[in-house]
Amino acid sequence: MPQDLTRDLHDLLERGRDRQLRLAVTGLSRAGKTAFLTSLVDQLRHAGLEARLDLLSAAREQRLLGAQRVSQQDLGVPRFPYDQAMQSLAGEPPEWPSPTRGISELRLKIRFRRAHANWWRGNTAELTLDLFDYPGEWLLDLPLLEHDFIGWSRSQCEDNGPQRQALFADWQNAVSELAPDSEVDEAQLAELAERYAEGLRGAREAGFSDLQPGRFLLPGDLSGAPVLQFFPLPGLAQWSAEALAALPEESLYATLKRRFSYYQQHIVRPFYRDHFRRFDRQIVLIDVLGALNAGPERFEDLSRALSRLMQSFDYGQRSLLSRLFTPRIDRLAIAATKADHVTPEQHTRLVALLEALLEEPLKDLHYANVPVKALSLASVRATEVREVTQQGRSMPALRGTDLAGESVLTFPGEVPNRLPDAEFWARQGFDFTGFRPLPKEPGPLPHIRMDAALDWLIGDKLT
Amino acid sequence: MPQDLTRDLHDLLERGRDRQLRLAVTGLSRAGKTAFLTSLVDQLRHAGLEARLDLLSAAREQRLLGAQRVSQQDLGVPRFPYDQAMQSLAGEPPEWPSPTRGISELRLKIRFRRAHANWWRGNTAELTLDLFDYPGEWLLDLPLLEHDFIGWSRSQCEDNGPQRQALFADWQNAVSELAPDSEVDEAQLAELAERYAEGLRGAREAGFSDLQPGRFLLPGDLSGAPVLQFFPLPGLAQWSAEALAALPEESLYATLKRRFSYYQQHIVRPFYRDHFRRFDRQIVLIDVLGALNAGPERFEDLSRALSRLMQSFDYGQRSLLSRLFTPRIDRLAIAATKADHVTPEQHTRLVALLEALLEEPLKDLHYANVPVKALSLASVRATEVREVTQQGRSMPALRGTDLAGESVLTFPGEVPNRLPDAEFWARQGFDFTGFRPLPKEPGPLPHIRMDAALDWLIGDKLT
Repeated sequence: MPQDLTRDLHDLLERGRDRQLRLAVTGLSRAGKTAFLTSLVDQLRHAGLEARLDLLSAAREQRLLGAQRVSQQDLGVPRFPYDQAMQSLAGEPPEWPSPTRGISELRLKIRFRRAHANWWRGNTAELTLDLFDYPGEWLLDLPLLEHDFIGWSRSQCEDNGPQRQALFADWQNAVSELAPDSEVDEAQLAELAERYAEGLRGAREAGFSDLQPGRFLLPGDLSGAPVLQFFPLPGLAQWSAEALAALPEESLYATLKRRFSYYQQHIVRPFYRDHFRRFDRQIVLIDVLGALNAGPERFEDLSRALSRLMQSFDYGQRSLLSRLFTPRIDRLAIAATKADHVTPEQHTRLVALLEALLEEPLKDLHYANVPVKALSLASVRATEVREVTQQGRSMPALRGTDLAGESVLTFPGEVPNRLPDAEFWARQGFDFTGFRPLPKEPGPLPHIRMDAALDWLIGDKLT
Repeated sequence: MPQDLTRDLHDLLERGRDRQLRLAVTGLSRAGKTAFLTSLVDQLRHAGLEARLDLLSAAREQRLLGAQRVSQQDLGVPRFPYDQAMQSLAGEPPEWPSPTRGISELRLKIRFRRAHANWWRGNTAELTLDLFDYPGEWLLDLPLLEHDFIGWSRSQCEDNGPQRQALFADWQNAVSELAPDSEVDEAQLAELAERYAEGLRGAREAGFSDLQPGRFLLPGDLSGAPVLQFFPLPGLAQWSAEALAALPEESLYATLKRRFSYYQQHIVRPFYRDHFRRFDRQIVLIDVLGALNAGPERFEDLSRALSRLMQSFDYGQRSLLSRLFTPRIDRLAIAATKADHVTPEQHTRLVALLEALLEEPLKDLHYANVPVKALSLASVRATEVREVTQQGRSMPALRGTDLAGESVLTFPGEVPNRLPDAEFWARQGFDFTGFRPLPKEPGPLPHIRMDAALDWLIGDKLT
């Protein structure tokens, strides 16, 4: 349609003129993407008035005039439910926004005064910021694109710890009786796939992160379709590639392989192509404290999931040409979310732990010469810091309301500043309290370092 | 993908050899599509054994060997939930299968002995029957494809009776303040569209049938997308087409028009193209008794909806070539469902009423020389007929369990055998009891005239 073309061309020009930015807000499920996006919109909407954004230079210099939501590009993608999220946060009792069950989109127009106006361009300018929200469950399907069925089966069946394996025992027992060349009917396949999906759901419940295929956890309109009825096949290593390739079309192996590639081609690739390829900036949100709570096996699982995930994005410095035609992420933030769940003097340790967790991907980014900033933040601050005197010694504590609704005063203790070793896990478990949001007050949402994140991610475009 | 191509070619050949048939089971919501499909599969699975299918000649002649569900074509479409439907029917208490919330697909392979075997073809043969289920709500979007936004607005805003209008009063009040050239923001549009959707939901609750756009009632993954945020605009007749065309892109009219055509192009047309174009046979299921229960305005609404709907299908005799490349519906059944809700001697009157209700489309079909059979049926019989003697006179009555769980014996009374006139409605209301399914017994589901419907729809392919 010509109208679409005009619009695309317009967008292309705006990208060229640096007036448009696509920000990837990346995070696994429960990392806090929805809260981050809600807070981001809320802070920018209040910018220039009451927002506390001192670490964002355009705001500090009082050049930020405000932000508005404008019509998004793709009419077929749901709009990010900002209003519903704000309603949850303003409820009595206040609640965290409900988790995302599908993709949603949001376009913000940010107006600002230029730092250096001159005769050939006006004093005020606009930046269009495109934001996306989507279920974290779907994100882990991106690494799946790099595998064929044999490789994927191997990656899913090996290197799993005992706790994770136990969750898949039911499926494992059923599948171990089946050789790749056995014939299976539709109903049997559906049942086995359902057992695999049950394993994935159990693993998510238990705090594991590295869960594929993602749509098994949130099928949406695909519920019940054969494309969601496959699973990795253990024991393929005992077969040669030729022997497997020669198996008839109705064999278990060939059927699963066909469904796996249908899943790649028709489900994951369009999602990646339409939503994940063209990003300029990225923030990776990680619930480090939640992973510490969940114990060593899950902590390692998270580290592996993140390494795999970050290989799915294109990083690199961009030139004018690449900015137009092969956009790459040229600046990145990694953030430990829920920093308000520990006392402020722990924040540097939290960041150190985050960097240790992402050691592998950070090496690659350093090699690609992409600037990365690691920080800790709270999108919506849920606690207040109190000084408490105990045995004559003053120490910081947190006051808030826990998820059960009890008002609590806690000393969350110390965050390790490097990857905990076995001895550490054995000596000390973690049990950070979960908090509900503070009662909503007028004005912008309270936060920790949202302004620092914004300054890093978009600050240079607001000059 | 070459594999897909091979499969498509194979299907094409099978169609040419008359070994494959696509059957459209068409019906608005609550017409009984899911029950019909469930019963159809169940009867054919029991064929050759206990099924009572005397009106299906292949069964009567004991040539029907049975049917099996086989792998469907499109991996991305959910499988028809036959097992769940059977579970509902076999529950304690038995329940009707839950209404369909998305599209689903089913492929049956029917084995039969030929009526006349000869040397160049074997004795037994197979027919592949492709069946589809989908929400009746989506079906009424097909007529919407023929309109532009102006024509659609007119068709939706005019000719509505007072009861229907009352359900849209809230939306009507809000929209009447807006001129086509006014500017509206996203949030306002979303709210107005939500009011319109509320009107549609209320109208469905109240028994109306002619409801567009269908996705407003069952949005699925599109929930919250701008493409589902439009509505017809009343009062466009006061504007010339040129004046409307000249309105700026941000005007109410232009925005709604854009979303309407996005809805046509990206939602309805792919659905039509992928699922509704290539049918060989069709059965239109109509809950005539339910419409009588609902009163004159809704009865007329149903008649209008069905006329519009049937214009969306291609009817006509088929040659070998047309069978391959432009499939058309060459034989059609129209069926009044839930015939078990009246006593057997009323069935001819029910069929006469059905034919009166579909008078307009039937004329067109007659003109196109497409054979049509009208019948009444019960996919899953829910009552038993009893002879009751009252004041010395024997008369038929129905025994069953009503939806509240009470065992009842009723005399449903007389069905009118032509379209009821105003006087008729004033004199006599209808109140047919709804029944829950009979407790499930071993063997095939009890039915009324499923065999007659099958004989008409596929009998000639089983020779």
